[in-house]
Amino acid sequence: MPSSLGCNVEILSVGNELLLGNTVNTNASWIAKRLTSLGATVTRITTVPDDLRAISAAVREALGRKPNFIITTGGIGPTFDDMTLKGVAKALGLRMRLDRTAVEMIRGHYRSRLSGRRVGMTKPRLKMGILPIGGVPIRNPVGTAPGLWLHAHRTEIFCLPGVPREAKAIFRSSLSQVISATAGGITFAERWLRVRGVMESTLAPIIDRVMRKWPDVYIKSHPKGVEASGRPYIELHLSISSLNPMLAEKSLKRVMEALRDEISNLRGRID
Amino acid sequence: MPSSLGCNVEILSVGNELLLGNTVNTNASWIAKRLTSLGATVTRITTVPDDLRAISAAVREALGRKPNFIITTGGIGPTFDDMTLKGVAKALGLRMRLDRTAVEMIRGHYRSRLSGRRVGMTKPRLKMGILPIGGVPIRNPVGTAPGLWLHAHRTEIFCLPGVPREAKAIFRSSLSQVISATAGGITFAERWLRVRGVMESTLAPIIDRVMRKWPDVYIKSHPKGVEASGRPYIELHLSISSLNPMLAEKSLKRVMEALRDEISNLRGRID
Repeated sequence: MPSSLGCNVEILSVGNELLLGNTVNTNASWIAKRLTSLGATVTRITTVPDDLRAISAAVREALGRKPNFIITTGGIGPTFDDMTLKGVAKALGLRMRLDRTAVEMIRGHYRSRLSGRRVGMTKPRLKMGILPIGGVPIRNPVGTAPGLWLHAHRTEIFCLPGVPREAKAIFRSSLSQVISATAGGITFAERWLRVRGVMESTLAPIIDRVMRKWPDVYIKSHPKGVEASGRPYIELHLSISSLNPMLAEKSLKRVMEALRDEISNLRGRID
Repeated sequence: MPSSLGCNVEILSVGNELLLGNTVNTNASWIAKRLTSLGATVTRITTVPDDLRAISAAVREALGRKPNFIITTGGIGPTFDDMTLKGVAKALGLRMRLDRTAVEMIRGHYRSRLSGRRVGMTKPRLKMGILPIGGVPIRNPVGTAPGLWLHAHRTEIFCLPGVPREAKAIFRSSLSQVISATAGGITFAERWLRVRGVMESTLAPIIDRVMRKWPDVYIKSHPKGVEASGRPYIELHLSISSLNPMLAEKSLKRVMEALRDEISNLRGRID
């Protein structure tokens, strides 16, 4: 992985459905991809159930590793088992209270969406406005539950909904900018090389050699076919994090060329 | 989540591609689904990069939570950054050594697949046979790198490849039985209810009430549409873990009926 230059992020996914295997964690990969492209480094992804103790333990552990950001998804809705905010509060020893701004966001959401149909602010609806003290609600442009922004020691904690379109909308509208500012102009650049006809175990020493020569570019091999068969197929992923986009491109180009040379010597085919 | 009756499992996914967001972690959800159906409870999924310190820290932390099993995926291939086994060894203070049985498995794999074409046992190929002392190699029915089975205190550690078809093949051939034996005849049963026309915040107190009455069945709501809109759409997932399959089915049926009654009172539609 490209060495972390400045902005480390942990993702904490909350939800029984993820641990039951009923839902694939596409939120984590979507967020990770966006973070990477913004120049941040995702250092860990943790998935825990809708359980207060499990959530608060995971938050505490993550804080101990001192990332710049912790982004949680899931567990901020109206049902009894939505307890991510409570888990964050517990991890930090904070009390919770009904946040006026959050309640206004929730009320406003129902008002604008239901065009006149009145909805009472019942307990489950108010629940989405109960935040750890010191936390700031984040407007949810496409759903009911506001997100949360909380400053904790050296880490900024963001809590997003589990519904993918809501998580994405809040990420785009409120997180992107803060994170890219923290990442401080780091560029992440990548290339793929598709290699046919060479086994991964044959490529291994080549990758080793090339990376030793140009250590700023990280090369990872992903075997896609069967290694020991007539037609092995491997995807090579080249990536670099750098403050200088032009230098990054130059390094990638140089490494691509070195790999192409070595692989054609082995009579491998590159797509 | 249904309360854990007996067999807790943690999944540890290793691979930069997961943290870069280039690969969605389908291995974890596939394994979690299988474990759940075998009666086990997945208590945490952790994803770390191809980094020795990160891997060994995650293994140590997982061991500290005393699960019955830790299943790792990824990082057991021939390249320099495949270091899961080394990370497991480091976590347990074990040395590594070339395992004869593993080497025979690797050699045998090449021999049978390449029908006569000779392949030298180069360093990268032998690397896949270097295991923590005390570990047992597991035959990989469809790929080169053997898996690993290692007993550690109260926990059995299994290391599987990251290539999905290889991870699945080893899981099916070697893990399923051990895990289902440990789970000790626990049945996991589930049902889905698709509810249209009722907002999640309106359903919340009903779910609460029904779960209080029948606490053995866990109900989780998954909002799929937009809550505050003309047509909210929610999937309800009902699940139960039990030693008695017939009682489990009976409980699920009873809860389904209670939910149907309550939802039709709200003029919701059930698909």
